[in-house]
Amino acid sequence: MNVTINGRTRHFRTVAFDAKRNAVLLIEQRLLPHEFKIVATRDYRETAAAITDMVVRGAGAIGATAAYGLAQGALAFRGDDRKKFSTHVKTVYQVLAGARPTAVDPVNAMNDVLATMHKGESVAEQQSLALAAAEEFANEDARHCEEIGQHGAKLIRNGMRVLTHCNAGWLAFVDIGTATAPMYAAQAAGKKFHVFCDETRPRSQGATLTAWELAQQKVSHQIIADNAAGHLMQRGEIDLVIVGSDRVLGRTGEVTNKIGTYTKAVLAARHKIPFYVAIPLSTIDWKLRRGFDIPIEERSESEVLGAWGQLPSKKRAYVRVANPTSGARNPGFDVTPPELIAGIITPAGIFKPRDLWKQRKKLGYGD
Amino acid sequence: MNVTINGRTRHFRTVAFDAKRNAVLLIEQRLLPHEFKIVATRDYRETAAAITDMVVRGAGAIGATAAYGLAQGALAFRGDDRKKFSTHVKTVYQVLAGARPTAVDPVNAMNDVLATMHKGESVAEQQSLALAAAEEFANEDARHCEEIGQHGAKLIRNGMRVLTHCNAGWLAFVDIGTATAPMYAAQAAGKKFHVFCDETRPRSQGATLTAWELAQQKVSHQIIADNAAGHLMQRGEIDLVIVGSDRVLGRTGEVTNKIGTYTKAVLAARHKIPFYVAIPLSTIDWKLRRGFDIPIEERSESEVLGAWGQLPSKKRAYVRVANPTSGARNPGFDVTPPELIAGIITPAGIFKPRDLWKQRKKLGYGD
Repeated sequence: MNVTINGRTRHFRTVAFDAKRNAVLLIEQRLLPHEFKIVATRDYRETAAAITDMVVRGAGAIGATAAYGLAQGALAFRGDDRKKFSTHVKTVYQVLAGARPTAVDPVNAMNDVLATMHKGESVAEQQSLALAAAEEFANEDARHCEEIGQHGAKLIRNGMRVLTHCNAGWLAFVDIGTATAPMYAAQAAGKKFHVFCDETRPRSQGATLTAWELAQQKVSHQIIADNAAGHLMQRGEIDLVIVGSDRVLGRTGEVTNKIGTYTKAVLAARHKIPFYVAIPLSTIDWKLRRGFDIPIEERSESEVLGAWGQLPSKKRAYVRVANPTSGARNPGFDVTPPELIAGIITPAGIFKPRDLWKQRKKLGYGD
Repeated sequence: MNVTINGRTRHFRTVAFDAKRNAVLLIEQRLLPHEFKIVATRDYRETAAAITDMVVRGAGAIGATAAYGLAQGALAFRGDDRKKFSTHVKTVYQVLAGARPTAVDPVNAMNDVLATMHKGESVAEQQSLALAAAEEFANEDARHCEEIGQHGAKLIRNGMRVLTHCNAGWLAFVDIGTATAPMYAAQAAGKKFHVFCDETRPRSQGATLTAWELAQQKVSHQIIADNAAGHLMQRGEIDLVIVGSDRVLGRTGEVTNKIGTYTKAVLAARHKIPFYVAIPLSTIDWKLRRGFDIPIEERSESEVLGAWGQLPSKKRAYVRVANPTSGARNPGFDVTPPELIAGIITPAGIFKPRDLWKQRKKLGYGD
């Protein structure tokens, strides 16, 4: 998406590749929203470290980063010995797969790249196919988000006030994002609307990343405390909710997303406000049969007990907010049942959550 | 309540009076939870400034502070000229009434003190009656909270997990508090239970004040992000909710309280978890006919856009969390309708919110 720095506006992707320098270009997300910086990782080990250290985060974004990292590693090989090349590529794959061991996206993305690469004969041919496959993976991620935007933009009418939670924006993908995609498409179509961003404690991705994204795209928006959405709904000040998801169960229509999503869905249902979930097809889990079985990560207490931000001196700092002798519970995600969800916005169209299984062919699963 | 400092446990009230020094003793609440300190205001102007500067906050607490402040001012008068004394007392009253102009408690409390004082003849007699009336006001505030505790403790059974929001604890009253009173009484009765404190963004009174209170009383507790309660309810980990209130409408049973209260009530209703509101009788507004007419204060954006806390150096600091080019909406309160409330816990017993008007005599209103 466009980013304006010192008055100059340029288009950036979250993840890109500089073939001349054989470098992966990443938006350094740990500095946002206070500083915008592109880092170039110069070999696959640096790329893996960027995934581990959360320079880049978000399903689509780390998938594309790993795909480019694999191509980068392959391209760094000198010579034409195919056996040595194959051993080298295996090492590259393992290092990148180990960068965030529980994430499935880097592995899926690299398997895509490998499958294309193996169609080549010579080392040089395989190297060039690897890069083409990585580029295609990234382009497809962006294209899918654009399709989500086209379908979802129909939901946004002039004058609407739209609530979103956490960050399912372009920073989590290669470009455009999922929950934000309908907003960007509606904005491009000239519609006027206003977005409320839940700050999304404890990690504040709404106040930091989503708000930064919307400000860059000049989308009218305000940050609210997670406590405020109920009141705004009660007073008729929210017309539509769009969120992303980490995992949607294809068999039941249940939606896992950042903690607090379920609460917003319950409130929306009470106030008859349509609640939508925007996802790429790779987010659908066709195996799991019960939302209750989705493991809910318990995260560090320190996230709840304080906050990271910028001091007046511009230095980044953590302040302990809470009573020093108290502890915290910190579940990272929750599960929203299908009866609270008006629709799942996908690149293939908008579906009722309970229709996903019936429509699984259209959604690219099984036969 | 009891506070342990350097291993020594002593009983404190939020507001007390030192007759020897003619000083009002206040817990310096702006330093909590990181530091516990009693400040002594040495004349009524200092006392008024402590109210203005939020050294002391909370309905009962500022009422008692103003009552003591009026007595303090009266006692500082030298001589026996009743006319001059009367003029002096008027000045004291006005200074204290102006300390937090929108609050009703200081004025009501001082009117109580004046009514008793005017029964005296000489200046000396009036001075002594003023102090006695202020002491009685503070004692009654504490006694009412104790009665709330006795009624409310019956709701807490062994093994329960209780949720509370914001701070309606002893720091907001002279002692014991309202939402916390049933917890302290249940604890004193030997019951075992666990409390989840909503951190209560944007001002974090749950993470700071309530958590500090519960830690001091050794009540088992954990802080949670405001986003987490829905998930915990869904997984069967919350059995009861008790909150305080800033204003309960006697005619409709609607409850105004800190932003986010309504959300918790909606969630509790969905999960069939009883939701109670604990209040002294002075919190009931017998006049207003519609909750929608309750003015909802819009507070400073900076509360939502960042957080106050302690740096590793122990220095207090504000960090800007949010994107620097984004703004915020910050409604301070919300209104919970009676159908979501199991009962209102008062010093006179527990009432269904819609029965308040019918029971108004018992609740001290009208004839």
